[in-house]
Amino acid sequence: MREERAILQTRFREVRKQTEDICASLEVEDYVVQPMVDVSPPKWHLGHTTWFFETFLLQAFKRDYKPFNALYNFLFNSYYESVGERVMRQKRGDLSRPTVKEVYAYRHAITEEMLNLIETISEADWRECSALIELGINHEQQHQELLLTDIKFILSQNPDKPIYRKAFHQEGIYIEPKMIEIEGGKHCIGYKGTDFCFDNEQPHHAVWLNDFKLQNRWVTNGEYLEFIEDGGYRDFRHWLSEGWECVQRENWNAPLYWEKRDGEWLEYTLSGMMPLNLNAPVCHVSYFEAEAFASWAGKRLPTEAEWEVAATQANVSHKNFFLESNCFHPQAISKVKSGFYDLLGNVWEWTSSAYLPYPRYRHSSGAIGEYNGKFMINQMVLRGGSVATPETHIRTTYRNFFHTDKRWQFSGIRLAEDV
Amino acid sequence: MREERAILQTRFREVRKQTEDICASLEVEDYVVQPMVDVSPPKWHLGHTTWFFETFLLQAFKRDYKPFNALYNFLFNSYYESVGERVMRQKRGDLSRPTVKEVYAYRHAITEEMLNLIETISEADWRECSALIELGINHEQQHQELLLTDIKFILSQNPDKPIYRKAFHQEGIYIEPKMIEIEGGKHCIGYKGTDFCFDNEQPHHAVWLNDFKLQNRWVTNGEYLEFIEDGGYRDFRHWLSEGWECVQRENWNAPLYWEKRDGEWLEYTLSGMMPLNLNAPVCHVSYFEAEAFASWAGKRLPTEAEWEVAATQANVSHKNFFLESNCFHPQAISKVKSGFYDLLGNVWEWTSSAYLPYPRYRHSSGAIGEYNGKFMINQMVLRGGSVATPETHIRTTYRNFFHTDKRWQFSGIRLAEDV
Amino acid sequence: MREERAILQTRFREVRKQTEDICASLEVEDYVVQPMVDVSPPKWHLGHTTWFFETFLLQAFKRDYKPFNALYNFLFNSYYESVGERVMRQKRGDLSRPTVKEVYAYRHAITEEMLNLIETISEADWRECSALIELGINHEQQHQELLLTDIKFILSQNPDKPIYRKAFHQEGIYIEPKMIEIEGGKHCIGYKGTDFCFDNEQPHHAVWLNDFKLQNRWVTNGEYLEFIEDGGYRDFRHWLSEGWECVQRENWNAPLYWEKRDGEWLEYTLSGMMPLNLNAPVCHVSYFEAEAFASWAGKRLPTEAEWEVAATQANVSHKNFFLESNCFHPQAISKVKSGFYDLLGNVWEWTSSAYLPYPRYRHSSGAIGEYNGKFMINQMVLRGGSVATPETHIRTTYRNFFHTDKRWQFSGIRLAEDV
Amino acid sequence: MREERAILQTRFREVRKQTEDICASLEVEDYVVQPMVDVSPPKWHLGHTTWFFETFLLQAFKRDYKPFNALYNFLFNSYYESVGERVMRQKRGDLSRPTVKEVYAYRHAITEEMLNLIETISEADWRECSALIELGINHEQQHQELLLTDIKFILSQNPDKPIYRKAFHQEGIYIEPKMIEIEGGKHCIGYKGTDFCFDNEQPHHAVWLNDFKLQNRWVTNGEYLEFIEDGGYRDFRHWLSEGWECVQRENWNAPLYWEKRDGEWLEYTLSGMMPLNLNAPVCHVSYFEAEAFASWAGKRLPTEAEWEVAATQANVSHKNFFLESNCFHPQAISKVKSGFYDLLGNVWEWTSSAYLPYPRYRHSSGAIGEYNGKFMINQMVLRGGSVATPETHIRTTYRNFFHTDKRWQFSGIRLAEDV
Repeated sequence: MREERAILQTRFREVRKQTEDICASLEVEDYVVQPMVDVSPPKWHLGHTTWFFETFLLQAFKRDYKPFNALYNFLFNSYYESVGERVMRQKRGDLSRPTVKEVYAYRHAITEEMLNLIETISEADWRECSALIELGINHEQQHQELLLTDIKFILSQNPDKPIYRKAFHQEGIYIEPKMIEIEGGKHCIGYKGTDFCFDNEQPHHAVWLNDFKLQNRWVTNGEYLEFIEDGGYRDFRHWLSEGWECVQRENWNAPLYWEKRDGEWLEYTLSGMMPLNLNAPVCHVSYFEAEAFASWAGKRLPTEAEWEVAATQANVSHKNFFLESNCFHPQAISKVKSGFYDLLGNVWEWTSSAYLPYPRYRHSSGAIGEYNGKFMINQMVLRGGSVATPETHIRTTYRNFFHTDKRWQFSGIRLAEDV
Repeated sequence: MREERAILQTRFREVRKQTEDICASLEVEDYVVQPMVDVSPPKWHLGHTTWFFETFLLQAFKRDYKPFNALYNFLFNSYYESVGERVMRQKRGDLSRPTVKEVYAYRHAITEEMLNLIETISEADWRECSALIELGINHEQQHQELLLTDIKFILSQNPDKPIYRKAFHQEGIYIEPKMIEIEGGKHCIGYKGTDFCFDNEQPHHAVWLNDFKLQNRWVTNGEYLEFIEDGGYRDFRHWLSEGWECVQRENWNAPLYWEKRDGEWLEYTLSGMMPLNLNAPVCHVSYFEAEAFASWAGKRLPTEAEWEVAATQANVSHKNFFLESNCFHPQAISKVKSGFYDLLGNVWEWTSSAYLPYPRYRHSSGAIGEYNGKFMINQMVLRGGSVATPETHIRTTYRNFFHTDKRWQFSGIRLAEDV
Repeated sequence: MREERAILQTRFREVRKQTEDICASLEVEDYVVQPMVDVSPPKWHLGHTTWFFETFLLQAFKRDYKPFNALYNFLFNSYYESVGERVMRQKRGDLSRPTVKEVYAYRHAITEEMLNLIETISEADWRECSALIELGINHEQQHQELLLTDIKFILSQNPDKPIYRKAFHQEGIYIEPKMIEIEGGKHCIGYKGTDFCFDNEQPHHAVWLNDFKLQNRWVTNGEYLEFIEDGGYRDFRHWLSEGWECVQRENWNAPLYWEKRDGEWLEYTLSGMMPLNLNAPVCHVSYFEAEAFASWAGKRLPTEAEWEVAATQANVSHKNFFLESNCFHPQAISKVKSGFYDLLGNVWEWTSSAYLPYPRYRHSSGAIGEYNGKFMINQMVLRGGSVATPETHIRTTYRNFFHTDKRWQFSGIRLAEDV
Repeated sequence: MREERAILQTRFREVRKQTEDICASLEVEDYVVQPMVDVSPPKWHLGHTTWFFETFLLQAFKRDYKPFNALYNFLFNSYYESVGERVMRQKRGDLSRPTVKEVYAYRHAITEEMLNLIETISEADWRECSALIELGINHEQQHQELLLTDIKFILSQNPDKPIYRKAFHQEGIYIEPKMIEIEGGKHCIGYKGTDFCFDNEQPHHAVWLNDFKLQNRWVTNGEYLEFIEDGGYRDFRHWLSEGWECVQRENWNAPLYWEKRDGEWLEYTLSGMMPLNLNAPVCHVSYFEAEAFASWAGKRLPTEAEWEVAATQANVSHKNFFLESNCFHPQAISKVKSGFYDLLGNVWEWTSSAYLPYPRYRHSSGAIGEYNGKFMINQMVLRGGSVATPETHIRTTYRNFFHTDKRWQFSGIRLAEDV
């Protein structure tokens, strides 16, 4: 029992540190700006993940707990209506205070308080409390990924296109594409283990599938470039109606971060501007672009059930593709014996499934219950995690979701087709 | 063979006439305005349904066909990108010309040309041609419903709240609510007959369902009023996040057309302002409202598969609930032996299913292929037809769809729950 | 005294009839639409000018007057906050009712009531009442001009570019341009007579001017075309900063209603599409365009004081340039002995003066006081009247005013320069 | 001659230092944000004022000058279209780089280069060059004031309402109001000396004025509070039509920075939140509010000519009211023998004059010519300088100008009336 607490302390301490490691190379100024509404200033992420622990653990379980700063509940709440008023999302970049230094002081104080709580919480509260800490850790890991995507967007806005980290780009080799057939019928999807999962991954339930084929790897930049050069962004026939409006309104003619200079395609990466790597997975495409590409290619996107059945059969599991792993190097590409590459990691893969509750889904009660269910509308599911996802934070049942016009995530494409 | 043509002529002539009957009581001015972007001026509907036949039939099959007016292709095209430029949707109400009289002249000329085409088309073209006419007739029936919903919205904007037709309101009696259980397992849904259906209703395919319950009737105004009086529009906990934003942005506090005067609730109907009928189905609610109501009631919305399985088992079919039938009177409510009321007709019922293609869906080729597939994103499915749906235009496999914030359709709620 | 009343009756009846004459060639549909927020539907103008008499005369002076229709105060009020709630300006085109026929019935009923009032009003009320009727007549004349400008814009939106009246276009001959010098010093401007004028034309007051020159005529289409062909719309140096933003936001490249087809410039006129008449005055330009043209030409716009001093010295006065007069024909161009052409009539001339109160300006009390003063900000003064201004409604002291980006008025340019 | 250069060097060095002094108490984060489009991040002001010298002096006069950083022309250009592309104004707060440290490095390098240029420039270039440096110094002084207003707005957005500098608030005593009469007739306004002035202050020219009265001091917070408590913000009759729309759209009910807490009015000042000082000048009001207050008070705003004539007669001149002077203390209030207080300094005073060119105004040629003229539309003139204006940067002929809805400047009210 003591040991269980010690393990949780270690894990908690590590995750808190990883978050700060992600920010280690930032300038103070990089922590502050919000160049589009979807992006939050890094200092906000640092504060918000801390606020989660202060609000749902310290305030709930620590007798006579005195808030670190009464204003922080207002400043670092994201969308929890139950917890009171908050800074409007689009206003986060208007605030110069608290300073980055003050936010770190807040983080460190709460981290210490939490380590103490883990040690001292009563046995009676331990079950509930440790479950919430597990949720808080997973919540913080989600923000680790958002931090990286937001940092990439923030840095990309600067005309000098700064480097975040030197090794963060791709030198991949070419992988021959192949459609792998999976048998249909009654399958089950959804999480059924006993470790942590989010409520939206449950319940485990039956689905009925046709036979289908799923490609052994993601679509490459080179393949996507063919779509562009074939006039893909100028021909309405490939596009959903709302996608076509979006292309025209936003003047899209390539994925986010691509730029043509003197006839050569470059891509902004976390290692700065780089020549486009034709063998690497296409990334930073919206659902509209993924769907249009698939339509142009005479294929389609997989449903999330198809994707999960394939991944389950392939028996893929955790792998290390996070920051330190230099994941984009060819040796890092995972190929399981089933023939699939990178079902987990590298780029999130858009599915053709709307983000809706599974049959008999139940959300938690209280503020924590606002976590997932209330976003189940008008978004599409992505599967598999990306280079930015912490290694211990991905599994085959994990459901990510974004609106159909979003491109700043590490989102790519894997093709499917009917048999 | 001659007979087949004569039958089609009769049917074509009748549907064309029904469209004009819907407009019979309008003033010239009512044909012109567009008080919100979703609404089209009635004269546009009259022109657009005519343009469909001129473009896809007369121009395609009649040798040396000379367009009635070269500008009409530009004016009356809706979204068919393949067919060229068109007036922006939100600009339809900016045009005073052609006049209503000129639009009717256009209609009548094309109707005559079409009747002639049906008689004279070669045997070689007959199959393709009659299938397109069938599509055109169904297209026109869809616009008959839209005409009625748009006319209701147009008239409602006028401060004197004019009457469209005297008998168009509800005097229903109270029906006891009851949840009816349906067995789960492998079921098939989608159209499999040989008559006309839209491409989005196919293919017929298997789904796997849990056991579930579906209510015997729609939610009533009285039940919805309880939700309002319980503070339903002021408590974020019942709402999807985007729904809650919508409530606040639009200041919703009741369904569209409800109005509280001197403490009494009234409703604008096609028969003018009426006291709210507590026994009648709640109508003109958005998906957000339907979902919030279900959440408040401790129930949920059915999926479209659940709805269709229930309707198939109940063996409901065509019934007459169109204009002449005075459908809102109690005797018009349909009860089949299964115990369900009004699965077809009265109000469209929001389902919890996103409007997406069925497995192995294929859209038609050419401009006609733009009909359905390209709208399959960010909308939810409604089932069952409404008081405004032509009687021969509804079936249990029919998939209607709207965005989650739309309320000007005759859209209501039927509750489901898990077993 | 009886005679005075009879004269006013005649004048009132004539002006009311002129308004209806302007609409005589419209289709019912043309009365209804509002293709931009600045434009009001013609039926609204007909109702609003009637509402003015009903509100400020009949309701004020007729014992036990019962409103014609209680809703009309809400529908036909324009901006008089004192008089209560009103339909938002941008919503006027959303209303299909009252019908055109009903609006005419309203007009005719009020016209009759007014004629009766003029006859029966007590001697005690006569002064105040006749002054208000005079104001109402002038108000209606203002709307006669707006009716014509709005009708032109409404008709222009229709792809078939309909003809309003056959003779309404220009066949002018070339007039040699000439700068005419006027001596500076202390001058007086503003109305000082005893006939009707608007409160903004008073008081008569002194100004100090430098010597200046004013051109004998307006800028022609031909001269403006040189500006266009010299790249005037693509060179920021000619433009005020806000003007340049406007050019880019609106993609302006010529005056409103100009259109280049197959290399030839055409202009939409009230007589339909016509080849551009190079000798006619340029019309439908904004202040930004007038100012940019003057800057490009090495000249400037006159101040309103300069304009009025020149016009006073030229001794110009009423002339007939209204609808029936076929004013655009060369013989209709007015040349006074001073050498100026068309100081009154043809096109409104933008001045470089902001629309602000004259020294010691006082507005009237009550709702009538809202007439002019509250618009005295962020607009520029135009002088001289246009082809659309009723002949008895213009004088050298008349101050018209519009925002700097408006172009749908008959607004043109006359150049000035320093000596 | 050497001496002239040495004097300019000293002055240049001092002004550069003053700018940095204004920022001395800021955190790095405060330099970066842009909470509304009118505000620029302080680091942008630091860069832009430096860019001015680099572009118009070093690049123009220094042989083989190599730009400090090629991107800075793009980043720090404000509106000079002649000088090329630039970051959109509303995007300045989206940029985290260059860092504050890099911007200071840029400043210091250019300051050194400039000091060297002043010493080494040829005699032939000296006249032109020193005139441009004088312009650059005045330009930088304008940005000193903007820096302070922008810093105030930036800090005010933070929920903890931080203190910029301790002594920066008002403790004034009550001054009895008095209307002072000035004789009308022919007066001359505009700059006619030989020192530096902006082109918009010239030429010196005659105007004709009526006799008028001008109040001896600005309107106080206490007087303005009476307007509020009399329902001033809820009664349309006091307001210009556009002002009334603005009040409603923005929900204004007090000047910017006022806040009512527990029934007591507070004001955010550069020394933090303070109880409202009823004797101090009302500040941070828009033109609309100034005009509405005057209307409510039965007075009016002065024209800029009236203001300048009064100030000239009062013989006011430079005084020290800048940062170090603690200007809001009573002893700092300037009273000249004419009886006027604070005609220069304390708050900018809205006049009723539109910002338009003086008669025979000529702007400079080249990019420098874009400085003033192109903004002469849709803005109103303010006179007299504020607590934020550098002491050597104000004179009685100085014309400041802002749009009628702006409130973040130190703008107040002085009343006038007719005799």
